[in-house]
Amino acid sequence: MTDHKQATLEYIDRHYERFLQELIEFCAIPSISTDPNHKSDVDHCAQWVAEEMKRIGLENVQLFPTPRHPIVYGENMKAGAAAKTILVYGHYDVQPAEPVEKWSSDPFTPEIREGYLLARGATDMKAQVQASINAVEAILKTGDLPVNVKFIIEGEEEIGSPNLDAFIESHTDMLACDVFLNTDTGMLSVDTPTITYGLRGIAYFEVRLSGPRSDLHSGVFGGVVHNPAQVLCELIAGMHDEQGRVTLTGFYDRVRPLQPDERAELSRLPLDEHEFLRLSGAPALWTGEKGYSAIERNGARPTLEVNGLYSGFIEEGSKTVLPAQAMAKISMRLVPDQDPAEIKTQLIHYLEKNVPNTMRWEISEFSNSPASVSDRNSPYVQAMSKALEEIWGKPTVFKREGGSVPVVSKIQKLLKVDAVNTGFSTPGDNMHGPDEKTHLLTWHRGTKALALFYLMLGKF
Amino acid sequence: MTDHKQATLEYIDRHYERFLQELIEFCAIPSISTDPNHKSDVDHCAQWVAEEMKRIGLENVQLFPTPRHPIVYGENMKAGAAAKTILVYGHYDVQPAEPVEKWSSDPFTPEIREGYLLARGATDMKAQVQASINAVEAILKTGDLPVNVKFIIEGEEEIGSPNLDAFIESHTDMLACDVFLNTDTGMLSVDTPTITYGLRGIAYFEVRLSGPRSDLHSGVFGGVVHNPAQVLCELIAGMHDEQGRVTLTGFYDRVRPLQPDERAELSRLPLDEHEFLRLSGAPALWTGEKGYSAIERNGARPTLEVNGLYSGFIEEGSKTVLPAQAMAKISMRLVPDQDPAEIKTQLIHYLEKNVPNTMRWEISEFSNSPASVSDRNSPYVQAMSKALEEIWGKPTVFKREGGSVPVVSKIQKLLKVDAVNTGFSTPGDNMHGPDEKTHLLTWHRGTKALALFYLMLGKF
Repeated sequence: MTDHKQATLEYIDRHYERFLQELIEFCAIPSISTDPNHKSDVDHCAQWVAEEMKRIGLENVQLFPTPRHPIVYGENMKAGAAAKTILVYGHYDVQPAEPVEKWSSDPFTPEIREGYLLARGATDMKAQVQASINAVEAILKTGDLPVNVKFIIEGEEEIGSPNLDAFIESHTDMLACDVFLNTDTGMLSVDTPTITYGLRGIAYFEVRLSGPRSDLHSGVFGGVVHNPAQVLCELIAGMHDEQGRVTLTGFYDRVRPLQPDERAELSRLPLDEHEFLRLSGAPALWTGEKGYSAIERNGARPTLEVNGLYSGFIEEGSKTVLPAQAMAKISMRLVPDQDPAEIKTQLIHYLEKNVPNTMRWEISEFSNSPASVSDRNSPYVQAMSKALEEIWGKPTVFKREGGSVPVVSKIQKLLKVDAVNTGFSTPGDNMHGPDEKTHLLTWHRGTKALALFYLMLGKF
Repeated sequence: MTDHKQATLEYIDRHYERFLQELIEFCAIPSISTDPNHKSDVDHCAQWVAEEMKRIGLENVQLFPTPRHPIVYGENMKAGAAAKTILVYGHYDVQPAEPVEKWSSDPFTPEIREGYLLARGATDMKAQVQASINAVEAILKTGDLPVNVKFIIEGEEEIGSPNLDAFIESHTDMLACDVFLNTDTGMLSVDTPTITYGLRGIAYFEVRLSGPRSDLHSGVFGGVVHNPAQVLCELIAGMHDEQGRVTLTGFYDRVRPLQPDERAELSRLPLDEHEFLRLSGAPALWTGEKGYSAIERNGARPTLEVNGLYSGFIEEGSKTVLPAQAMAKISMRLVPDQDPAEIKTQLIHYLEKNVPNTMRWEISEFSNSPASVSDRNSPYVQAMSKALEEIWGKPTVFKREGGSVPVVSKIQKLLKVDAVNTGFSTPGDNMHGPDEKTHLLTWHRGTKALALFYLMLGKF
């Protein structure tokens, strides 16, 4: 076993350049799941992942169609019924690249710069999908795989995984496993191997107001016809109070309070306000919800954010319109035990109560999923912790993450297994923003750590 | 003279179809002054107007270049030094057509429908420019022109006339006149000949906030980094109080109070709340500034409007970004004796006081001009009133208008002459909006009324 481990790690070192070329190829595919114009790119990307699975020796590789984008499945069950089975999750889709003009190179022409690979989707999460597959290749090419592995790589994570739940529900036998591995979470820094034991949930909406039937002359109608942009601003302003708390009635009712020991541990994480400031480039941090530290507000408390705002004339120059419509995209990050369906009801109540009779309004829902928390003492989490420590030579830290990976709570609920959340992106990777990048040494180390994790589970 | 009058009106009737074809040609030129991509169209349009002036027999026709778009000038001074001189103002530029998809036909392929001509710029104000020129043609083709006329048709009205003031200041001799005629104001309805004796001023700004250096993942940074979209909404929400009053400190200080007799007269205008509702298609009217009627709020009280709003991701679907920036276009309509420069200072003070230290901010100014009021009892205004009454067979009403025509106050100040404001657009013409249109019978009557006005001034 020690020989196999050594051989596996050496294999990963030896094939670094080829793995990198493959990662570049993967990242060059603009698999933007939200954009119908990129449907064929998304399909092509799914095909690419399936070929990769076949190449490394996975079996039963299939593309499962959904109403939107296919799910790629592959497995290697040669370890036999007595061995443990890991279900590995990932997604091959990416966020849109807008604003493209803010990128310093083309988002889908991956470029290596100062030890990073720059491309949309590089860190979220093509590098990690590829690492979890390459780790299996390295083991298989140097000996036997001592665990069963199943891969489920979806193409709709960035649009809220609308078809994943139904797929899981209808394939519980195929997906049956002992543990669920999700590599779609991040590290605190490239030097801090990290396991995420809590993930926020999400509820994402678009709110649209309409007043007059078309854009009007702001001089001829201003002061008499209510301006939807102004009303929208007032509605959004009213969603936080002066304590930085979200004002939707009932929003905090189900929030599980943070316990003193957890607060103490979070306060020891090597991520302070200066780091948030450095990473974001903001002039100053927001004090946010009063009574909570930055790291608590970011991962362990719920938040409400405006993701997009539009009304009227936004081109260069001036146009004196009173807009007919105004739109906001608004998402809430949820913590245990908030219920996304209740949050939606709270938002509707807020609008019912506060939208004046001068406006028509409607909302649509993009995604909803509850938060999840993993057992930090499970043997699987502990194995991952040891694997990370061995590769980085540093103790693994445990954190709660502000982002959302809806599949985790779904798998926990449906397959009744523990989840291990790790990953190799860092807060400075500009995930979802321009110049998204992944740190290549960290990706390389991550491949090794995942290989060690697979090997360790062979001893269970 | 009565013969000449009759002949002039008959000429206008007889040439209706040709005038209409010319108007269609004029409206087909996309002379969008704010858009650099349309620079050559704007130039072409200026050329078109100059040719039209030459064709009808104006002299000294010239295009005066400015840093942006040329001013077209032409005159007919044959009436001699003893006769009165009218300076006729107009603009050949138009607003952008966005949102183009909301138009039922192409904005620059003029279409006749139910007695209206649909095209961007049809009612604002190509129909009126053409009417003021055609009225001269009709008089010249049927006899002598008994007044001197000078035309100044600019190409930058829709971008706030940035170069007009300097042009007027440096051409006061050329522009010297007895009265200034501005046809860029509107009628209360197609059956209500209207003279506008008050025009609101305007101060138009763009406010930009920036927080983080690039768009961030809203899960990873939400709750810790302040969201510029949220801050912008709070700033805009704070610009009105619960009484619908603008909160900028000092905003109302110089507002000339409405006198009881003026309020009484405004209350008799045939434009009630139902009409605003019908024209706008809004579900209900805004109560706006408390204590003032709709018609007062619209034309005689100052207002603040959001003309555009943008932040983050506004395409189809969802993207979980915390935006780096947020932008609003905000304009104030001013009444006598508000000073646009003071309003700018008030806005800057508001931002200095209210933008949190989590944001950088900047503003730019698009236009600024004070309001203007004309003497309703001047002989020129009375002549126009009679001309309109004669053509429409109805008494002329006097109103204050919510829109702004900055040149009026400038001319009043620099050339020290009375202004007559009339025009033939109506509130239902979708000025600045999709499906802008002009009522053809009203435009035809307008041409006749302007001809009568020119002839009457010959008797002064």
